[in-house]
Amino acid sequence: MPQSFDALIADFEAGKTAALARAISIVENHRTGYDELMTRLHPRIGRAQRLGMTGPPGAGKSTITNLIVQSLRRDNLRVGVVAVDPSSPFTGGALLGDRVRMEAVALDRGVYIRSMATRGSLGGLSARTAEVADVLDAFGFDRIIIETVGVGQTELDIARTADTTVVVLVPESGDSIQTLKAGVMEIADIFVVNKGDRPGADRLRNDIELMLGLRRGATSANIPAHHGIPLKTFNPIRIARDAARSENPEEWLPAVLGTIASKGEGIDLLLAAVDRHFRYLQTSGGLKGRRRNRLKNQVTEVVAERLRARLWEDPDTITWLDTQLDLMEAGTATPFSVADELLSRSGPLLTGVKP
Amino acid sequence: MPQSFDALIADFEAGKTAALARAISIVENHRTGYDELMTRLHPRIGRAQRLGMTGPPGAGKSTITNLIVQSLRRDNLRVGVVAVDPSSPFTGGALLGDRVRMEAVALDRGVYIRSMATRGSLGGLSARTAEVADVLDAFGFDRIIIETVGVGQTELDIARTADTTVVVLVPESGDSIQTLKAGVMEIADIFVVNKGDRPGADRLRNDIELMLGLRRGATSANIPAHHGIPLKTFNPIRIARDAARSENPEEWLPAVLGTIASKGEGIDLLLAAVDRHFRYLQTSGGLKGRRRNRLKNQVTEVVAERLRARLWEDPDTITWLDTQLDLMEAGTATPFSVADELLSRSGPLLTGVKP
Repeated sequence: MPQSFDALIADFEAGKTAALARAISIVENHRTGYDELMTRLHPRIGRAQRLGMTGPPGAGKSTITNLIVQSLRRDNLRVGVVAVDPSSPFTGGALLGDRVRMEAVALDRGVYIRSMATRGSLGGLSARTAEVADVLDAFGFDRIIIETVGVGQTELDIARTADTTVVVLVPESGDSIQTLKAGVMEIADIFVVNKGDRPGADRLRNDIELMLGLRRGATSANIPAHHGIPLKTFNPIRIARDAARSENPEEWLPAVLGTIASKGEGIDLLLAAVDRHFRYLQTSGGLKGRRRNRLKNQVTEVVAERLRARLWEDPDTITWLDTQLDLMEAGTATPFSVADELLSRSGPLLTGVKP
Repeated sequence: MPQSFDALIADFEAGKTAALARAISIVENHRTGYDELMTRLHPRIGRAQRLGMTGPPGAGKSTITNLIVQSLRRDNLRVGVVAVDPSSPFTGGALLGDRVRMEAVALDRGVYIRSMATRGSLGGLSARTAEVADVLDAFGFDRIIIETVGVGQTELDIARTADTTVVVLVPESGDSIQTLKAGVMEIADIFVVNKGDRPGADRLRNDIELMLGLRRGATSANIPAHHGIPLKTFNPIRIARDAARSENPEEWLPAVLGTIASKGEGIDLLLAAVDRHFRYLQTSGGLKGRRRNRLKNQVTEVVAERLRARLWEDPDTITWLDTQLDLMEAGTATPFSVADELLSRSGPLLTGVKP
């Protein structure tokens, strides 16, 4: 670790924003010494409450994040935001368009916003995002919002690293809720139907609730006729869910909320649901479980990175592989026989222990 | 390996399509015995010419692929197509819309089309696509087309596994060529500007050529004034490129072509460019290099998968990690110290060699 890291960590502990920015850069890019830096920050990690926000492009995630930040600031909570933008290699920064709106809160010293682009391979992006969130956590932010544009499985993986995951949908995001992949239903602790004043918003909310109910065996067919509540607000699943909750406080059934972010409507209810979910996680033991899971994922990732570096940056391995490529071309070896032989001869390299 | 694999391989070698479909399923999903199957197919791999097609959604890749297949079939060449659709977890099959047009050629026995969805993690998708292409190669297809919707780095990685990579763009795909990320410029052996009759097509072609020229130090400023060729067809970069080619046949400068796929225009020139690039690869040694690179990538991937399975499917490791999670939570261990200790104690596990 470079000697200047001591000064960096002193500045970091003193709450200097420049030190935070530098620490994040080191961690995001896994620069030399990043593991030592993370090791020294480790005891300070684990106090922040983490909120994941995902959804399709254009659903209004950034606007909602912005409103959440403003609301948390009114309560004097310090907020770190990690925004992951998997921009297309063909259209460049198009998906970043919303980011500019964040500047309204960016001048506030109690807020820190970091954009992470998916330069290069997506591999390990989820792990790196979690590590950047760890740095923000260690710096002392009370809340961390991890926002990802949901264009692939990676974004779901990222959102999943949070304590509470919010999936933002809009009426026009698909013909029907049927197009939502199973993974989306499983990561969402809270669904938000944004642009709630547009046609189809009620139907989308209803469809989500039906699907959540169906997953648990409740269909509109076996729910008894309801008395006196107008159809539009009658919500059989919410009734079933509330009943389930009172019977079994250990089970969280996702909340389904509506917002009109452009008018600032629904954000208070969303934050109340986030708090309710966090309290549920605390009492059910789920919070501990999610944090253990993050640590486990981090170990897995560190192990994979160590193995990759030890093996493929080793000059002898590179030279040996080159001779094996000749054999593979000649058909006297295959990628599988070469892989097995490589592993069987690489013990000390892989373990990092000299023989 | 299941006993029935002998029958499968016999049917595969006899050219039965059902055996091909089953072999691909085994390889795509890395089912038990997939490595033994790939090992047995290994000597048959390496005869097909591989073409990668990528570009943003809606650029017309499927239409162009369809036309290429029809043209190759007229020459009596057998064609395998691997289509990778990284559909959004939120909008489901939307990106798959174009696929249906392929059905026109799908009834032809000299053509085999396989769609691969990016279910689950994107990790290893590029390697699996290359392996599915290997299976098609072993089956005896003369040409293999690997088509990916370009919405991320993974798609570039996939297209890069081909011998020749075609990047399809359309005038409306971005405000300007400046939005193309560096990775796109580097993987393209041939650029196709499709929808060449739309406004902006000439400008896009020109921009691509300028950018390719700029990368090699030629700008419109230092190219001498041209004599007598109308501005629209005057192409300083093409002239510079042709000059460079005659001086240095070892260097391939990407071709930039126009097509109007909806009218079938430009496909012959595209196929001629693909053939020219393949001949260039043969004479320059680049073909051997690309094939060695595929083998190398496969070894890397097999090694990573073996290590992952050996370590994380080991019951003792799982139990041990659980005790370490307690220490990490207590702050007396960190993910890095745990990773290092895990590796140092796992020698026989990692090498697959009993101590």
